[in-house]
Amino acid sequence: MDVVDLFKKRKDIIGNTVTLEGWIRNHRKQKEFGFIDFSDGTCQEHLQVVYDKGLYNFDDVSKLLVGCALRVTGEIVKSEGGGQDIELKATIIELLGDCPADYPLQPKRHTNEFLRSIAYLRPRSNLYQAVFRVRSVTAQAIHEYFQSNNYVYVHTPLITTTDCEGSDQMFKVTTLDFNNLPIKDKKVDFSKDLFGKMAYITGSGQLHGETFAMAFKKIYTFGPTFRTENSNTKTHANEFWMIEPEIAFCDLNGLMDIEEDMLKYVVQYVLDKCPDEINLCDKFVEKGLREKLEKLVKSDFTRITHHDVVDILKKAKNKWEFEPSYEADIAKEHEKYITEYFNGPVFITDWPKDIKAWYMKTNPDGKTVAAVDLEVPGAGELMGGSQREDDMDILLKRMKEMDVNEEAVDWYVNLRKYGGCYHSGFGMGFERLIIYLTGVENIRDVIPYPRTPGSCEY
Amino acid sequence: MDVVDLFKKRKDIIGNTVTLEGWIRNHRKQKEFGFIDFSDGTCQEHLQVVYDKGLYNFDDVSKLLVGCALRVTGEIVKSEGGGQDIELKATIIELLGDCPADYPLQPKRHTNEFLRSIAYLRPRSNLYQAVFRVRSVTAQAIHEYFQSNNYVYVHTPLITTTDCEGSDQMFKVTTLDFNNLPIKDKKVDFSKDLFGKMAYITGSGQLHGETFAMAFKKIYTFGPTFRTENSNTKTHANEFWMIEPEIAFCDLNGLMDIEEDMLKYVVQYVLDKCPDEINLCDKFVEKGLREKLEKLVKSDFTRITHHDVVDILKKAKNKWEFEPSYEADIAKEHEKYITEYFNGPVFITDWPKDIKAWYMKTNPDGKTVAAVDLEVPGAGELMGGSQREDDMDILLKRMKEMDVNEEAVDWYVNLRKYGGCYHSGFGMGFERLIIYLTGVENIRDVIPYPRTPGSCEY
Repeated sequence: MDVVDLFKKRKDIIGNTVTLEGWIRNHRKQKEFGFIDFSDGTCQEHLQVVYDKGLYNFDDVSKLLVGCALRVTGEIVKSEGGGQDIELKATIIELLGDCPADYPLQPKRHTNEFLRSIAYLRPRSNLYQAVFRVRSVTAQAIHEYFQSNNYVYVHTPLITTTDCEGSDQMFKVTTLDFNNLPIKDKKVDFSKDLFGKMAYITGSGQLHGETFAMAFKKIYTFGPTFRTENSNTKTHANEFWMIEPEIAFCDLNGLMDIEEDMLKYVVQYVLDKCPDEINLCDKFVEKGLREKLEKLVKSDFTRITHHDVVDILKKAKNKWEFEPSYEADIAKEHEKYITEYFNGPVFITDWPKDIKAWYMKTNPDGKTVAAVDLEVPGAGELMGGSQREDDMDILLKRMKEMDVNEEAVDWYVNLRKYGGCYHSGFGMGFERLIIYLTGVENIRDVIPYPRTPGSCEY
Repeated sequence: MDVVDLFKKRKDIIGNTVTLEGWIRNHRKQKEFGFIDFSDGTCQEHLQVVYDKGLYNFDDVSKLLVGCALRVTGEIVKSEGGGQDIELKATIIELLGDCPADYPLQPKRHTNEFLRSIAYLRPRSNLYQAVFRVRSVTAQAIHEYFQSNNYVYVHTPLITTTDCEGSDQMFKVTTLDFNNLPIKDKKVDFSKDLFGKMAYITGSGQLHGETFAMAFKKIYTFGPTFRTENSNTKTHANEFWMIEPEIAFCDLNGLMDIEEDMLKYVVQYVLDKCPDEINLCDKFVEKGLREKLEKLVKSDFTRITHHDVVDILKKAKNKWEFEPSYEADIAKEHEKYITEYFNGPVFITDWPKDIKAWYMKTNPDGKTVAAVDLEVPGAGELMGGSQREDDMDILLKRMKEMDVNEEAVDWYVNLRKYGGCYHSGFGMGFERLIIYLTGVENIRDVIPYPRTPGSCEY
């Protein structure tokens, strides 16, 4: 039996005898009694296991240390102590796996930095139990949202020879022997590599995703992506997960409707399914987290153009580190100001085309594109999307201007030729969402085994 | 409105006026009437759109070709013709995106080989609509199964420096410039690479998954994996998706219970959610597919040891290409015979240890390991799993025998030291499951953009 199922039944299970398997998270011993803080990892709440001298192996059990794996049989009884309503009165406690006194994960507060150094043990700690369960439940929320709204989940390829996203940002993959590379004309001869040419692992499934949107109307991807960015910050990792929906017959307003609806659904889902995890994060990580999330679900998201945002920023009395500009991106300080100004999430639309990607739809003004970033209080940019350029001539012109290799993506361009239509899509970094949902600040602490420059342990 | 939602309401929507957006899949014109086979890709079934001379742009509409994107408004009416119960009587038909006569995807039978060459268009064809929707729904079935049974979904890392699975089978990843590699002591100096050492993309998340099973009891992974195998067969791809559950406090019998329960759940889920898709595959791909799937859900899976399987094979009157042996793997011809012999799925357990992986639990006989392969009629091996070696001394001995670098996986070994317990896990190739569910034979036809030796298009 899983402990989570036991807690679901709560008082209805009082009087029943159950057998559970799990680990000692804490252990208080007295002369005649012992109290084990018992968890099998299936929920945040621990079960108190009480045993006494009646146990034939009382002396052995009372010596067991934190971390031991146990099988426990006993009756579920009403708890007399405070802090819990039910507990298990053990009749058999069997040691399945011992744990020595030098077990690094003791029941005390460890720093996140220390816990990162024992990444293979940290999911056993209370905080990481919460974070990684929220991560799992959030993934499911995303799948359920899209599947129940008629989206098709598409596994776009990870390995690609299309380097249109900028190959300098992509990892190269090879089967060649680095110390015995085939050379032709003084260059490495990739015709000898497994795919017969230089290959990369991708930073986005968007272009491939669009081809499926033109077949299924609504699709989403959800998979790992990679960036080679040599940047050691709290928000950068070289491997992360991303969700990229693409929707045919959808304009920028329709896209914002979907983004808002999806985010509210996911946040409500996590609030419903992970109350204990959110409470723990609220208590120990970000005070007011629950209130922040509940507020988001109820709020109306503001929609405003980049131009009007800059107007507001210019009128503000703040002393900016970066001067707001109609032609430039907005800085972190601006994002913060704007979400506070509107006291909630803000969609910023219609960005200067020169600072945005080549596939975004040029607006009638010729200067801006139908792009939208969602700025969320306390998290900054959570999603970025756009209507895609569906005019083939304009697209080709933009590609030329921005030096995109047309030959490599002729199939993508052809979507405009064969029954093209207005369509839109966005990307959401999954870790950024988890950071928002848990209050945990460092991306290294929401990824099971983070990969960052100079760090690829385990 | 999505066409799938319209069909869900069926006759209840008769008399309503709706606006739909989608594509022409076929077009029959008569002098006074036209019939458009209309699809928006949200379901397998197409909607018949009927229009007549009453349409102000009748002449233009009647010239529209297969592939065009349309917006159609009209009333849902009872269909007079055969083949469908409702149809749309159009009052407005608006062209959103034209499609030329040389559109490669005409409404006729194309070979799978040809369709592979237009991989960015093939999801619009009936067969690939079915295959890729089944793929999406199957993914959701897997998530729902595990999530509803208290499993935590874990994103194990793709990039790894642990090459214990055999680095010769793994792609290397690098940010170094191939034509200007840093050299030290006549070898490539990977200390200059982004992670400061040689890195790979992984072929399995199992070892990392186990660390999370020892924290959450039940976990699963579901993500892309990579093999460099230079093998051009129907069943090999260099990039594919895999599901790898790991369960603490679970022995080999418990593992088989889970595998059987999960597979039946997933098959029933797909039968329930994709009746039209399964019917299409039954009709055009594998006769008897539906019956095969329905039978699987009702069948009891046989459990038999490798030794007893070899006994049966030796007694058989077949002339084997590969002589059955107690010490060897079983061949495809043997798999086929055994599933036919038992007339259903067969778990083959307790394999000779020398042909299995180092982390599998050695049985008391010292000769076999507690491994299990699931053989399914018509699909061969669908899942492979084992109880994991939880005795640290035996594990270390096996690693030495099989030349596994202990230092690289000391953390994995340590799981046995810190509250270790009996635990098991299995892997299932996602594409193999889709092949089984659709009857489609070639792995290239169940992956959106397949990567195989010499082929990494799009």
